[in-house]
Amino acid sequence: MDEFALINRFFRTAANAAGPGVKLGPGDDAAILSPTPGCELVMSMDTLIAHRHFPADLPAADVGWRSLAVNLSDLAAMGARPRWALLSLSLPQADADWVAEFARGFGELASSSGCVLVGGDTVRGPLAITVQVTGEVPAGEALLRSGASVGEQVCIGGVPGEAAAGLAAWQHGTRSGALVDRLARPAPQLALGERLRGVASACIDISDGLLADLGHLVTESGVAGATVHLPALPVSAALAAAGDETARQTWQLSGGDDYLLLFAWPAGRPLPDGCHAIGHFSADVGIRVLDAGGQPVEVARSGWNHFADASSEGHRP
Amino acid sequence: MDEFALINRFFRTAANAAGPGVKLGPGDDAAILSPTPGCELVMSMDTLIAHRHFPADLPAADVGWRSLAVNLSDLAAMGARPRWALLSLSLPQADADWVAEFARGFGELASSSGCVLVGGDTVRGPLAITVQVTGEVPAGEALLRSGASVGEQVCIGGVPGEAAAGLAAWQHGTRSGALVDRLARPAPQLALGERLRGVASACIDISDGLLADLGHLVTESGVAGATVHLPALPVSAALAAAGDETARQTWQLSGGDDYLLLFAWPAGRPLPDGCHAIGHFSADVGIRVLDAGGQPVEVARSGWNHFADASSEGHRP
Repeated sequence: MDEFALINRFFRTAANAAGPGVKLGPGDDAAILSPTPGCELVMSMDTLIAHRHFPADLPAADVGWRSLAVNLSDLAAMGARPRWALLSLSLPQADADWVAEFARGFGELASSSGCVLVGGDTVRGPLAITVQVTGEVPAGEALLRSGASVGEQVCIGGVPGEAAAGLAAWQHGTRSGALVDRLARPAPQLALGERLRGVASACIDISDGLLADLGHLVTESGVAGATVHLPALPVSAALAAAGDETARQTWQLSGGDDYLLLFAWPAGRPLPDGCHAIGHFSADVGIRVLDAGGQPVEVARSGWNHFADASSEGHRP
Repeated sequence: MDEFALINRFFRTAANAAGPGVKLGPGDDAAILSPTPGCELVMSMDTLIAHRHFPADLPAADVGWRSLAVNLSDLAAMGARPRWALLSLSLPQADADWVAEFARGFGELASSSGCVLVGGDTVRGPLAITVQVTGEVPAGEALLRSGASVGEQVCIGGVPGEAAAGLAAWQHGTRSGALVDRLARPAPQLALGERLRGVASACIDISDGLLADLGHLVTESGVAGATVHLPALPVSAALAAAGDETARQTWQLSGGDDYLLLFAWPAGRPLPDGCHAIGHFSADVGIRVLDAGGQPVEVARSGWNHFADASSEGHRP
């Protein structure tokens, strides 16, 4: 199968190119799209490299899902509604079965999130996927990282650490279950992102780890620091069963890939369902983690970093 | 230097993130952009893989220029005006000098074309660059591949074959000169694309080779075929000096990477400066090339294809 046939087959099956706002989908030099009057565009792009951002033996459908999910999570963190995606696939060879499975997983999430695949590119090269997404938000209403104030609550949209526990399970040979699903098929919190607009003063999605991403909120907001109360971190049954307290603490505080929203929320205001207050922004310098007795907890590592950690050629964290 | 420092340094120097329509540039989960009322968005994304889409020893500044240029050329082919770009850089290591040079070349073209780098991603991996661009066009005025009619002229925006001749020169050790420049720093024909709106009935940019891309116009327009008159192909002094007639013919008809606009133009209508009529769309099936005597010319190969040509691991064509 030649390149063009591969691209066409892929795009025409994965994409419902006649979606809303899509004037021209794949097949020309570029896509033509009609933005919604009164909205701003929100754009993000992320690359996933095999072995590094996902296990090399992750099923192709999960790779497809995941490559879109990590991008949609950025839109969720801005409170934006997904509209359109572009995809660049770098493949070692034209493996039609792999591409079909990839397209299936990508398409499942695209459909359920209202995101239309409108174009892209297929090249021969090392296995890598780049996805660009565009969302829309009513003008002026996007959530930024930069609005948190001292005294506001630090809140999270679910149970952190499950993806890291899923990765640990994967590395020990487990290929299914709730934790592995969290790693393989992260669910971008799009509805929550829209729900937070107008109330949350700052928001980010957790990709580097809870403490690392909390650090981004602190830095971008220009507050001195934040405190996290360890006993306030929600724990699921699956997470509780997956490892001892030390492992769980590391997964929860430093594990990446959860793609939960982490946000600043006014004190005393009821939280959206499924969200948890885990600390507060403070006038004390730095990020502190306190145990049940109010004592500071030492944390092994504060987040993943591609270039700083040459020992981790596998995948993060 | 860690990943975040590298990204920040790169983006803050390469991007003038406060450009028109840019409400929020790099540094948050996504960029926020204000589209122009009454315009449609035109989006494209292309990946360049080292060794494959550019020589591995191409200077970093040229790689930066080129990675944006091939994308802007898609906007030119739609008649769109560039607005914003996202960039994903996959690098084997955090080489600050390389990134700075890359950023310089990228930034030169971005500045001169009115395109603002608003975000992206840096990952560790094999050297590869993905760029996504968004342009704007007044609603309904974009140029498509699909509007050519029998009897219209086949026209081209310059001298085809120079990039292929430049590649041949490069492979023989030449590292400068007009032809090498055409390979290293293709100039997207953005002004011409806008000029063609409302008159040209179909347009494409030549990336796969003149005949291959003419084939796309024919197929997408649903006409039977097209005829190219070999003596009508413009030849520059540099191209004439670069090889014999056989080599030149192959470069001109089958060489990729020229990024000139190829378009359908009404018969008898004056052409924009620098453009040449080289044939016409016809009711005869297929693409034909005729010599000065009106005899059909055999063409060695009709274009580059990533997956179909396993022998070409270097770069195209």
